[in-house]
Amino acid sequence: MAVPSIFFGISVLHILVLGAAAGGGFPQWNSNDAVARRARAGDAGTPLRTQSSIAVSADGERWVLFNASPDLRQQINQRRQLQPGADAPLRASPIAAVVLTNADVDHVAGLLNLRESQALAIYGHDRVLDVLARNSIFNVLNPDYVARRPMPVDTVLALKDGHDQSLGLRVRAFPVPGKVALWLEDKNAPDFGTAEGDTLGVEIFDEKGASFFYIPACARMTPELADRLRGAALVFFDGTLWHDDEMIQAGVGTKTGRRMGHMSCSGEDGSIAAFSKLGVRRKIFIHINNTNPLFVANSPERAEAEAAGWQVADDGMEISL
Amino acid sequence: MAVPSIFFGISVLHILVLGAAAGGGFPQWNSNDAVARRARAGDAGTPLRTQSSIAVSADGERWVLFNASPDLRQQINQRRQLQPGADAPLRASPIAAVVLTNADVDHVAGLLNLRESQALAIYGHDRVLDVLARNSIFNVLNPDYVARRPMPVDTVLALKDGHDQSLGLRVRAFPVPGKVALWLEDKNAPDFGTAEGDTLGVEIFDEKGASFFYIPACARMTPELADRLRGAALVFFDGTLWHDDEMIQAGVGTKTGRRMGHMSCSGEDGSIAAFSKLGVRRKIFIHINNTNPLFVANSPERAEAEAAGWQVADDGMEISL
Repeated sequence: MAVPSIFFGISVLHILVLGAAAGGGFPQWNSNDAVARRARAGDAGTPLRTQSSIAVSADGERWVLFNASPDLRQQINQRRQLQPGADAPLRASPIAAVVLTNADVDHVAGLLNLRESQALAIYGHDRVLDVLARNSIFNVLNPDYVARRPMPVDTVLALKDGHDQSLGLRVRAFPVPGKVALWLEDKNAPDFGTAEGDTLGVEIFDEKGASFFYIPACARMTPELADRLRGAALVFFDGTLWHDDEMIQAGVGTKTGRRMGHMSCSGEDGSIAAFSKLGVRRKIFIHINNTNPLFVANSPERAEAEAAGWQVADDGMEISL
Repeated sequence: MAVPSIFFGISVLHILVLGAAAGGGFPQWNSNDAVARRARAGDAGTPLRTQSSIAVSADGERWVLFNASPDLRQQINQRRQLQPGADAPLRASPIAAVVLTNADVDHVAGLLNLRESQALAIYGHDRVLDVLARNSIFNVLNPDYVARRPMPVDTVLALKDGHDQSLGLRVRAFPVPGKVALWLEDKNAPDFGTAEGDTLGVEIFDEKGASFFYIPACARMTPELADRLRGAALVFFDGTLWHDDEMIQAGVGTKTGRRMGHMSCSGEDGSIAAFSKLGVRRKIFIHINNTNPLFVANSPERAEAEAAGWQVADDGMEISL
């Protein structure tokens, strides 16, 4: 067993991108546009992407998932870091905890893969934990083994595994503009019943204080959010749509990004413009919708994002901070 | 577009095995036994298997899923039959309907992949549809597009797609001995609250009357079930465990097959013995647990099953009847 680097005081944030795509993945199951067809044909410029999630570890051995995508079983099969190590017991997993940033299906459905009486901790805002409690299907996670722990906003929380052992990671969740999950929308309530806590960003720290941000959904840049992100070492940010109306223009949907709770990458109100003066050292788009041309390696939009200092997340991307 | 064979009166049942494994798949996410390690290392004798589901079509173009496994998105990506055809609209799917045989997580969670406002029909026993109705997460399937239709037992039902068009397939569901889904167990009720309708087998017919059986869970062979299956052309049958106590013996679980609602393959009360005098022409084990040595190509147990006339389902197996 490798000696965790934290024992030498060399605390490092290990980050592994499990999936880069927004809900539905890339290609989406029922997509038949030219880009989806290229992806299915195995075109190297349009690799398949699973649904968005990252894994973070302070010691390279015990990992915390940020969101649990419906593709989680496939993601575990594809990433040796999430598979039991050679010296582990007959039933074991490096996955020690899951932090949920909202209750979107593409962020919570993967929990259903984490059954089989394996100790684990789930962190989420009370709004999100309430949703899990109201959906009995999540009872497949045996409560004798799987702890559900509230993650209040604006509070630094030390993450612990299912046995209450420290994971060497801390997290501070904060509300960002957004929308309640599609499947929880109340058509008769203002803003579809959205309340604070429905959409969170998180800042993730190691024990030395190094940190980065993970914000897979955000409806607009506010002055408070800009202040929070200014000068950050790394931000993973909502890259759902390139243009606010691209799904309508493509004839594959009726909703704008704003309606779905996502700011677009491009345009005056977009994230590229909003980040241009924040001095963030590394900016990575994640949670990218199948209609976003960022998924096409040689697209003008990809070139424009890269020229503005952005990267596009890839499944399997590894970063150490 | 190929001309569907049904137009020539050559009705054929096309069967595609999407996944052969029981809940958790093979290997299971937290398995670290020797066989799981062989599978992850890419050993040709222990190929990876996704969770159990079959797809059936009368015309080779429109498919009905029997159960929707958590691996469904991966299964669609792996099987061209389930991907939109070249001439299909920008948003389209050959998946026309889903028939549910119980409410196990490994049989219903995959429904969460079938969103995006695509017309579709879901068939299930009232007990199963009630469970979906009580779990609001399934509202991600837009009710404007996705019909939920009751499938009463002992009734021949003509399957139709989400637009009420005939699919050239009929199904007759029937109760088999079993158990309510794990996550719905009531510890204070007799038999954990199990009632008729919780576990179904199905007989699937084409329009000429050819048929086969799909029974992914069954706790024991009854005289009624034996009468029903006698002389059948093809039966897919519950292959969860080889020995009733194999999970306990392997040190990876505390439950017997009986406790989980599954009869074992081997032994006096097992399925191999129970089928030995039924004259079923083709017998295929499906819904195979990761602990079952049937998953190891050169195991004595696999040889024993094959000597008794059984096959082991493989992901991607295709059969025409």
